[in-house]
Amino acid sequence: MAETTEPDFRARVRRSFDRQAFMRMIGAELTRVEQGMVEIELPFNEMMTQQHGILHAGIISSALETAGTYAGYSVLEPDAGLLTIEFKVNLLSPGRGERFLFRGEVTKPGTTIIVSDGRAYAMSQDAPPKLIASMTATKMVVRDREGFAE
Amino acid sequence: MAETTEPDFRARVRRSFDRQAFMRMIGAELTRVEQGMVEIELPFNEMMTQQHGILHAGIISSALETAGTYAGYSVLEPDAGLLTIEFKVNLLSPGRGERFLFRGEVTKPGTTIIVSDGRAYAMSQDAPPKLIASMTATKMVVRDREGFAE
Amino acid sequence: MAETTEPDFRARVRRSFDRQAFMRMIGAELTRVEQGMVEIELPFNEMMTQQHGILHAGIISSALETAGTYAGYSVLEPDAGLLTIEFKVNLLSPGRGERFLFRGEVTKPGTTIIVSDGRAYAMSQDAPPKLIASMTATKMVVRDREGFAE
Amino acid sequence: MAETTEPDFRARVRRSFDRQAFMRMIGAELTRVEQGMVEIELPFNEMMTQQHGILHAGIISSALETAGTYAGYSVLEPDAGLLTIEFKVNLLSPGRGERFLFRGEVTKPGTTIIVSDGRAYAMSQDAPPKLIASMTATKMVVRDREGFAE
Repeated sequence: MAETTEPDFRARVRRSFDRQAFMRMIGAELTRVEQGMVEIELPFNEMMTQQHGILHAGIISSALETAGTYAGYSVLEPDAGLLTIEFKVNLLSPGRGERFLFRGEVTKPGTTIIVSDGRAYAMSQDAPPKLIASMTATKMVVRDREGFAE
Repeated sequence: MAETTEPDFRARVRRSFDRQAFMRMIGAELTRVEQGMVEIELPFNEMMTQQHGILHAGIISSALETAGTYAGYSVLEPDAGLLTIEFKVNLLSPGRGERFLFRGEVTKPGTTIIVSDGRAYAMSQDAPPKLIASMTATKMVVRDREGFAE
Repeated sequence: MAETTEPDFRARVRRSFDRQAFMRMIGAELTRVEQGMVEIELPFNEMMTQQHGILHAGIISSALETAGTYAGYSVLEPDAGLLTIEFKVNLLSPGRGERFLFRGEVTKPGTTIIVSDGRAYAMSQDAPPKLIASMTATKMVVRDREGFAE
Repeated sequence: MAETTEPDFRARVRRSFDRQAFMRMIGAELTRVEQGMVEIELPFNEMMTQQHGILHAGIISSALETAGTYAGYSVLEPDAGLLTIEFKVNLLSPGRGERFLFRGEVTKPGTTIIVSDGRAYAMSQDAPPKLIASMTATKMVVRDREGFAE
């Protein structure tokens, strides 16, 4: 397992997340970084809807996939990078809410392959969080490839 | 099978696609609509990158998922809608290119469940199209639910 | 949600499981049935190996898929049936062990679609259970179709 | 790409397939081996059914997964092996038929990761082949690991 004990894995995760132009574009924030677990939050925005006015499946998937990537990244050694090989998303309830929370967690760390799972929740002031999607993603650790570490 | 023979399935698909604020936001265009097959194209844009400067997996997935939805939608009767239950994307090569083409095709039509497959290609003026991702998606046909038809 | 409160959902699940010739063929036993959660156990058997002598991915998937089906079935009303639409398995570690445990759990119940997740573990007398696979499955509830209820 | 030009990739694929005790157990035959494409056939057998008397999803998945593995294996260099990381199966129609055909094809070869897709068909003497399932699988090439090459 490629687990890191360096004190600043949080800073390393944040620096990489901050370079994701697309996460910035949609207003996603990295609100929690633990070893093997990351949370991203996103306020609802009409720009991100599909034809029925609810959050686009692509946005849900993008944020879940990113949460899964940084969950994996948080347990990597500092000079390694992570590429997503594949992921699957199940859309469990319509994406209606004021805010959305995306949690990624490492299910299986490894020196070559890291598998993470994710859950997405719709958040509203007057209701409990509602599970709207689940995800499983497979990532490959890359080393010695310029431009793929942090 | 819920196949439509109405002459204007293309117009119906376009009207629904045009209501997807998120597709508009990323500059996606519906460039081809056949019965059971749809193509979406997207110019590269730095706003849509991940931390290594290539197209974000979430953008690739969003456009593929949308192409799969409208491929299915093109064979539906006019008063039905389509909800995505789940989808899986395999990222086969880095998303580098001037433009990207996303093709969705119906693999299995049905009265309740429609399965579509998709392929994404990176396009450049001086090279053949490069396969960068594949997708399989499962959709559920919804009827009699206000707001879910076109 | 199609939750059942009938006292004998366990008997109903067992009767259906006992009709699965394939589960019998591989020596799988239903060792636990709760509402929304089912466990299946399987002793190792050389007949079920792949080319490297470890448990075949197909066996792992078969038992996981079945555990996911009966987890869903346990929360169905008595006269409904369940068809698997799709499932995905991640193989996390080689299938080496004396016995194997497959747990299926309902992640999202529903009147039409039920999503369950599963985990497979290799068991040995002298070691803690080892996670060898995870699964997500999408099922469709069928009613009024002869032969598909129990 | 790890493509092989050795004349006897067919023999190498067959030798490995013949060591799969589980494929033997269910009566599966390797009926076609090309570079990047493999077919497996299976006669219907009551032992392999689920609770409704049709072919068990686990059998369909096992044979599809194996076809995908050997499609990938056929383009590998002789001293490398292939491990399945994950796969997803969509069950498109009930598994009813006299025989079943499972075709695996390499979608994306690679030095580390190979992606293959598969299709399963039910065959009957008096009807055209019926598509009953589709699959996508991700495999990892392993080298220098004793016991994982052929």
